[in-house]
Amino acid sequence: MSLLVTGSIAVDSVKTPYGVSENCLGGSAVYFSMAASFFGAVRLVGVIGPDCPFDLAKVFAGRNVDLTGLEIRKNSKTFRWAGTYHEDINKRTTDRLELNVLAEKPPKVPLAYRDSKFIFLANTAPALQLQLLEQLGDPSFVASDTMDCWIQGQRDDLDRLLKKIDCLIINEDEAKMLADENNLIKAADAILNMGPKVAVIKKGEYGSILCSAKEKFILPAYPSADVKDPTGAGDSFAGAFMGYLAQVGKSDFESLKQAVAYGTVAASFTIADFSLAGLTSISRDDIDDRFKFLRKLTQF
Amino acid sequence: MSLLVTGSIAVDSVKTPYGVSENCLGGSAVYFSMAASFFGAVRLVGVIGPDCPFDLAKVFAGRNVDLTGLEIRKNSKTFRWAGTYHEDINKRTTDRLELNVLAEKPPKVPLAYRDSKFIFLANTAPALQLQLLEQLGDPSFVASDTMDCWIQGQRDDLDRLLKKIDCLIINEDEAKMLADENNLIKAADAILNMGPKVAVIKKGEYGSILCSAKEKFILPAYPSADVKDPTGAGDSFAGAFMGYLAQVGKSDFESLKQAVAYGTVAASFTIADFSLAGLTSISRDDIDDRFKFLRKLTQF
Repeated sequence: MSLLVTGSIAVDSVKTPYGVSENCLGGSAVYFSMAASFFGAVRLVGVIGPDCPFDLAKVFAGRNVDLTGLEIRKNSKTFRWAGTYHEDINKRTTDRLELNVLAEKPPKVPLAYRDSKFIFLANTAPALQLQLLEQLGDPSFVASDTMDCWIQGQRDDLDRLLKKIDCLIINEDEAKMLADENNLIKAADAILNMGPKVAVIKKGEYGSILCSAKEKFILPAYPSADVKDPTGAGDSFAGAFMGYLAQVGKSDFESLKQAVAYGTVAASFTIADFSLAGLTSISRDDIDDRFKFLRKLTQF
Repeated sequence: MSLLVTGSIAVDSVKTPYGVSENCLGGSAVYFSMAASFFGAVRLVGVIGPDCPFDLAKVFAGRNVDLTGLEIRKNSKTFRWAGTYHEDINKRTTDRLELNVLAEKPPKVPLAYRDSKFIFLANTAPALQLQLLEQLGDPSFVASDTMDCWIQGQRDDLDRLLKKIDCLIINEDEAKMLADENNLIKAADAILNMGPKVAVIKKGEYGSILCSAKEKFILPAYPSADVKDPTGAGDSFAGAFMGYLAQVGKSDFESLKQAVAYGTVAASFTIADFSLAGLTSISRDDIDDRFKFLRKLTQF
């Protein structure tokens, strides 16, 4: 079934203990689309400025990523982010943030995209996520990400959004903040009471938890000895998660479990190299091989 | 097969956000024995002073715990620990520590225990662990715990110990400290190079990893919504882990995986109540039911 993502396209500069990557391609919609494209077609909705040094048509050449929804906005500039990951690679500092086009009105969803069935609203102001969602006809499964600044600063909008989505994909610390609850299991239950039928809580190197009102599934992260650059791990997770669901056209709990495992695998490839290199160097077979290995690592 | 534990017997005073438990029974050998006794007989080696307010024969009445190795040392005093767990229950402060009998010579292993096949050397100075191990004849599988102060302060002794044991059971932070390596997978490999054939690294609420030179197994913790008192979780884990191995009389990787799952289940019961109440209120059937549920929660 059709899959649509709305999110950022970024020029990233990243330092990690293992190297430096200046002015490389990043952004939630980019990582998401790259990961999702292993499973089927992706419709991308996003905005850049004329300054963007990347030709996305070339970046996604040979992959099933529809760029009809890519807007190049005159008199604006592309989103830029610079950050440093520390010796403990789970900790990062933002060195520079230029919102540019992200601080303006959201892109328009093309008419041809409005019948999309699986939707991912990547992290941005919840009012914008609502505006994007209103442009869509009758989706089957809507998932969304959010972050600390919206939880603390735009809670009314976020509460409205949570009532309209099927699935919230969120980091552990943000889940605890949103629920005002230190115990993650209780936090998940509290989030489900806010609207979504499903919550996926990401714990970084500790894996993730999938929760519905009736069922739970817990999966460790893939054990990665070589982590070069964690940028994009969460968006790649979401891309493979939603890509798999759109491919099978289902969102029952068994399918969601498989989707979490595919998300885990995609994230593990992303963090093994800078920018998109970890994803562009692999095939669907590599993903399926690691999926099987992840099953072997966790079954008893 | 016969199972022996050497470790502490403590008078604990614990504060958590959910209550207070003054002068309750604790200690590594006590939690270990209680958890292991669900799987078969346990031989306990430990020392208390005449001041100990607990009658261990009564505490373990009806359970298969052999107290021949319990020494009541005249002119000494029982180990006492007082601690506070904080709002984030993973963080604790030691309020008071009276080593007393633990600062003296180790107990003697009774002659009748010297044929024991499965051995757990709970956390204490590695020189003492070595002295205890030397009193044993021909064990099949020796596991040991250790902690930051020995890693930093008695490294030569610890290195000698690591060459003589089959399995190190250790916390994540201590594993990273021991290996001087931030990546946990690399840390595990480094620890295996120090001697043990197997390492079990405990990540608290994030579960545990089992590593041998050839294989890995990763298991999340049981998702506990109600954590009242985390004291003894690690020793209960070790007790059920070793108890299961001694019961089946094997230590191949498949058995070790099952043992890690049983350890995870025992720890989840321990933390649900103060002191030993979480373990004394359950049966082996409760353990097996939760074992099956843990499998359901993690399989895909």
